[in-house]
Amino acid sequence: ADDSAGQAATERNAQLTKPPGALGDLEDLAIWYARWSGQARPRIDAPQVVIFAGNHGVAAAGVSAFPPEVTQQMVYNFQAGGAAINQISKTFGAKMDVVALELDRPTQDFTQGPAMTESDLLSALQTGWLAVDPQADLFVAGEMGIGNTTPAAAIAAALLGGAVQDWVGRGTGVDDAGLAKKCSVVEAGLARHAEVLHDPLSVLQALGGREIAAMAGSIAAARAHGIPVLLDGFICSAAALVLHAMNPAALDHTQAGHKSAEGAHARLLEHLGKTPLLSLGLRLGEGSGGALAIGVLKGAVACLSGMATFAEAGVSDA
Amino acid sequence: ADDSAGQAATERNAQLTKPPGALGDLEDLAIWYARWSGQARPRIDAPQVVIFAGNHGVAAAGVSAFPPEVTQQMVYNFQAGGAAINQISKTFGAKMDVVALELDRPTQDFTQGPAMTESDLLSALQTGWLAVDPQADLFVAGEMGIGNTTPAAAIAAALLGGAVQDWVGRGTGVDDAGLAKKCSVVEAGLARHAEVLHDPLSVLQALGGREIAAMAGSIAAARAHGIPVLLDGFICSAAALVLHAMNPAALDHTQAGHKSAEGAHARLLEHLGKTPLLSLGLRLGEGSGGALAIGVLKGAVACLSGMATFAEAGVSDA
Repeated sequence: ADDSAGQAATERNAQLTKPPGALGDLEDLAIWYARWSGQARPRIDAPQVVIFAGNHGVAAAGVSAFPPEVTQQMVYNFQAGGAAINQISKTFGAKMDVVALELDRPTQDFTQGPAMTESDLLSALQTGWLAVDPQADLFVAGEMGIGNTTPAAAIAAALLGGAVQDWVGRGTGVDDAGLAKKCSVVEAGLARHAEVLHDPLSVLQALGGREIAAMAGSIAAARAHGIPVLLDGFICSAAALVLHAMNPAALDHTQAGHKSAEGAHARLLEHLGKTPLLSLGLRLGEGSGGALAIGVLKGAVACLSGMATFAEAGVSDA
Repeated sequence: ADDSAGQAATERNAQLTKPPGALGDLEDLAIWYARWSGQARPRIDAPQVVIFAGNHGVAAAGVSAFPPEVTQQMVYNFQAGGAAINQISKTFGAKMDVVALELDRPTQDFTQGPAMTESDLLSALQTGWLAVDPQADLFVAGEMGIGNTTPAAAIAAALLGGAVQDWVGRGTGVDDAGLAKKCSVVEAGLARHAEVLHDPLSVLQALGGREIAAMAGSIAAARAHGIPVLLDGFICSAAALVLHAMNPAALDHTQAGHKSAEGAHARLLEHLGKTPLLSLGLRLGEGSGGALAIGVLKGAVACLSGMATFAEAGVSDA
């Protein structure tokens, strides 16, 4: 973070032609962006959205409304420009990249053993890290992975405790039987890996998935490159939680793009101390909610950097 | 409204490559836009933001934190491109027009007599009507007028009843004495014009202002031209309320762009039956919240019109 850029932005904001505070959350948001991008009068010209895709052993247990082959099918759809995230990225001038992580080699069912080997985990973290374009000026991590609300719920339950059913939701739309199945799968996973639940990276390895690890790696890489991040929904936030559990300051360069309809997301954001910019009932993943929030952030930054001061405009201050 | 376009959009939405309902409010929003724009597969290429400016007799009573000359100064600032609304309009590719309504002739202090003559009212309504570009494909009405939360509160109290203090807020930032002053001014206005409070247009004439009447005229004109509308904050919503009081269906072509920090705005939106797209604590006016919501609507419409169907993409349905 660049405190001098943040301070300069704060001082500039106070002189702009508006009543103090009248732009509400946009003011804090623009100052946050200035601080984390290191620019006192920033522009957002090159947002990057990356969709990480992975397959999950637990999908075979019937935790999703969709079959596992949809992960690969949707990757083709992303590449062909046909998914929601393609349209939203284009709307806000973001480039979109797709990174499929060994889709033909799903993670192990975590009720049977660790989802990933240590080597799988490191490889996925690195893939995520390297997917971030150092020239980007804003980053959104999205995901695709049939079944992946189950590992996300398992990670949240492992790192934050509480009742398993508070972290498990309907994902793409499972019925009551599917919901009960998800709960029992998560409970079995927590029991199976009880001895490693104190360590965030071990939790990620035991209960996570490749795209979740890649998202964590990408969010950390964005920090290293000085690129502010908009978080997406429940799965992205579970990936971010792993970083937060290692260091509560690790997400200071991030904002919650939106609050998902997946009920546990609101609870997770509270634990992360994040107020969502949007709350429109999305539960799609793909980075869709994070990318939609690019518009809000662009508007906030445009006001900070483009508005005239009272002195410049000859407007009487209060 | 074009029901066949709405129906076609609803059918298309059901086939897009996402779990049913996973885009949440964006789905209803895009279908609403299709219905009111009359395009089954719409695009938003030409949004228009118009800022109406007016001056108010009640401003002399000390109901604002800013002096009345700021209205004209801000008009110059809009014309020079220095205000928040200029930056937000540019961010979302909207053209922005400024219409100043006889700023050197403030309305009459409504505690002394009707704010406007009938001729003033008709002229302001017509100015608003004519300000809408028939070629626009989305319309946002914004305003500037020092003191204008007071007439807006008076209109709301007149047409919806309830305690005056429930409709009066701090506007650009008045202190407790200013707030008490606003309440007593609104009460005096309601008492002075008690015999006309049953008629929405008479309320607008007696308690409103030129920019508020112009906003009402513009929102009605957009309906006639088949242009969907995003409402801004409290003052814009008070203008819309006049139309709603005449005909509850008169605002069906509008969505609430945002919920303002001005407390009475949430109450007013409830009366109008509108759920705001954004809630970011803005209380600036100028159309800023309505224009910020253009991004959300553009994203929604881009998904509806640009996404592939399950059949096109070869993705397995649930």
